[in-house]
Amino acid sequence: MEVRIKILFTSICHTDLSAWQGENEAQRAYPRILGHEASGIVESVGQGVTEMEAGDHVVPIFNGECGDCVYCKCEKTNMCERSGVNPFKTVMVSDGKSRFSSKEGNPIFHFLNTSTFSEYTVLESACVVKIDPQAPLKKMTLLSCGVSTGVGAAWNSANVKPGSTVAIFGLGAVGLAVAEGSRARGASRIIGVDINPNKFIKGRAMGITDTINPSEIKKPVHESIREMTGGGVDYSFECAGNLDVLREAFSSTHEGWGLCVILGIHQTPRLLPLHPMELFNGRMIIGSVFGGFKGKSQLPHFAQECMNGVVNLDEFITHELPFEKINEAFQLLVDGKSLRCLLHL
Amino acid sequence: MEVRIKILFTSICHTDLSAWQGENEAQRAYPRILGHEASGIVESVGQGVTEMEAGDHVVPIFNGECGDCVYCKCEKTNMCERSGVNPFKTVMVSDGKSRFSSKEGNPIFHFLNTSTFSEYTVLESACVVKIDPQAPLKKMTLLSCGVSTGVGAAWNSANVKPGSTVAIFGLGAVGLAVAEGSRARGASRIIGVDINPNKFIKGRAMGITDTINPSEIKKPVHESIREMTGGGVDYSFECAGNLDVLREAFSSTHEGWGLCVILGIHQTPRLLPLHPMELFNGRMIIGSVFGGFKGKSQLPHFAQECMNGVVNLDEFITHELPFEKINEAFQLLVDGKSLRCLLHL
Ligand SMILES: NC(=O)c1ccc[n+]([C@@H]2O[C@H](COP(=O)([O-])OP(=O)(O)OC[C@H]3O[C@@H](n4cnc5c(N)ncnc54)[C@H](O)[C@@H]3O)[C@@H](O)[C@H]2O)c1
Ligand SMILES: NC(=O)c1ccc[n+]([C@@H]2O[C@H](COP(=O)([O-])OP(=O)(O)OC[C@H]3O[C@@H](n4cnc5c(N)ncnc54)[C@H](O)[C@@H]3O)[C@@H](O)[C@H]2O)c1
Ligand SMILES: [Zn+2]
Ligand SMILES: [Zn+2]
Ligand SMILES: [Zn+2]
Ligand SMILES: [Zn+2]
Repeated sequence: MEVRIKILFTSICHTDLSAWQGENEAQRAYPRILGHEASGIVESVGQGVTEMEAGDHVVPIFNGECGDCVYCKCEKTNMCERSGVNPFKTVMVSDGKSRFSSKEGNPIFHFLNTSTFSEYTVLESACVVKIDPQAPLKKMTLLSCGVSTGVGAAWNSANVKPGSTVAIFGLGAVGLAVAEGSRARGASRIIGVDINPNKFIKGRAMGITDTINPSEIKKPVHESIREMTGGGVDYSFECAGNLDVLREAFSSTHEGWGLCVILGIHQTPRLLPLHPMELFNGRMIIGSVFGGFKGKSQLPHFAQECMNGVVNLDEFITHELPFEKINEAFQLLVDGKSLRCLLHL
Repeated sequence: MEVRIKILFTSICHTDLSAWQGENEAQRAYPRILGHEASGIVESVGQGVTEMEAGDHVVPIFNGECGDCVYCKCEKTNMCERSGVNPFKTVMVSDGKSRFSSKEGNPIFHFLNTSTFSEYTVLESACVVKIDPQAPLKKMTLLSCGVSTGVGAAWNSANVKPGSTVAIFGLGAVGLAVAEGSRARGASRIIGVDINPNKFIKGRAMGITDTINPSEIKKPVHESIREMTGGGVDYSFECAGNLDVLREAFSSTHEGWGLCVILGIHQTPRLLPLHPMELFNGRMIIGSVFGGFKGKSQLPHFAQECMNGVVNLDEFITHELPFEKINEAFQLLVDGKSLRCLLHL
């Protein structure tokens, strides 16, 4: 039930950056092939795989869908017992071994079910989604993580309603995909918050109607947002991976019905910065993984919607480089200059 | 817009106990008339009150419903801007004054919009619900707080589905009302957790199918519950007012879709004992005030359902005493001997 794919394009998500920097000690492994946002072509399929064959266009997904477990059979969740995202996993589930090795024969570990910073990679078929060969594969790379995560958070996790108000904290590819998803759903107001004002330029093209640079205002961001919206937004999204930002995002929602969706990865062992009684004011907080999409079942249709223009993918690819320049691409992300830099293999 | 009522029955909720013991320093006020679970008869109505008149049977609600504010007009919440529950409020909203005074003319403060440990009390009409005069007023006292809070948490806040599994932590009147509400909704399994095994006897009559005394098992409660239910319950309810219990309740729910509802009042300044990444496993946590009921709109119908036997109120009144013996009634609650002790005025 494994598939070997030839990677054609891969890009860098902040989660790769965090893993590279070893932010979470318990999740470190070495040597390891990072990368999880990519697209490619099936090179060969292993025993038992019938739904794909060599030559198929595919997108890897870090949060797989086995189709058989209690979660896959439940419509309320996109978790998967066998193939779901697991930052501690370093080997294949079937035999507990790696499919990569050094010249000396030592194992090189896998990362997030995918390990796409590689010319070839091996994945469980539960982590490979077949994509319409008519779809431009380069753009489909974005569906492998960032855009699906952001758009899906707006559509599936929050279920943003037409006319509603939204605040997005952190305008990287993930946050801007939330904006694009909220815009597509008809949100009336989309407030973008970032400490890097360069992000606001792209943001306008993706539906952001108002912007806040926390370092340019004197009061806490949530106070500004409450003033701007008569009490707070209907939905807020934390896409910066910072617990202080998370608290601002939570407090920016309207009492009584506001929903705060956590997308950022929070490495610190710190507790959720909320007091239990704050939940009595009717604000809600949830986490969202891969935008709540069940990858194998829902991504082909989502790809179709992107091709039909429901969601505009054009603005997300800000740079393109040959794979050899991957360190340059990392630096672009670190410097806040890129949304996604597409690496060509 | 105020109503003076003659209290006929009042009982003691754990929230009165916490206030009496001054657990939350910031919320203390003295002298003050406590009590918020009661029933009575309208003695007179103030200017502007047209929906009630002297002689009407009524139940006070600590979480009022003005009908006019943004929350009252939103179906997603039972908050109310003007008359909602506010533990810091000590006077009437209209003139910032108290309606009680000592013989010397000094103000005596109000408590939770109601102050029912008194022969007469004055409330905003938004905090008074008219009840069918055919309904047995004594039992209707329970709808004033505990039973509405518990049953409503199961019905409105969690929306317990037939066949689902439930765990309830803390089997006082509130927790047992959650059991009764879950039973009425057709939950297949209702696990009751309490450190006082005497509570299990009543619990069986209210739908509890399994019981756990944490002091009698060696492993953490959530591990037992996960084993008993193949991964965790669909819904858990924290009705003990203890943050360690809250963590057990959260962890007892099933990954992917489990919902933990907080009902207990948590006085400590401690943070919610959860890590942000724990929300990525698909468990949800929300707070519930007065069971999510919009008091004035929904309580009359709920009273009808109780009279029709949908919810059985009989087991909740474990003791009755004259009002003079209120200290004895407090002691019964402290000792875990009573669910509700009804005080007759
Ligand atoms: N939940 C999921 O399934 C999932 C999937 C992909 C990525 N992620 C996470 O989402 C987050 C965003 O990923 P990305 O690739 O868009 O990252 P990115 O680095 O491109 O974007 C992060 C943005 O946050 C901004 N930011 C940083 N600190 C801020 C602050 N204090 N206030 C406001 N803005 C601030 C940065 O300027 C930047 O624009 C990361 O934590 C990543 O690990 C989660
Ligand atoms: N959210 C609301 O609107 C609302 C309304 C009413 C009451 N409350 C709160 O609900 C809680 C329950 O109220 P009640 O009147 O039923 O109280 P109660 O004192 O009658 O019941 C509390 C129960 O919890 C049990 N308990 C205590 N510590 C425990 C532990 N460590 N593990 C398991 N069980 C434990 C006690 O033995 C007791 O049976 C209180 O915190 C009260 O303030 C909230
Ligand atoms: Zn990613
Ligand atoms: Zn699965
Ligand atoms: Zn109460
Ligand atoms: Zn109101």
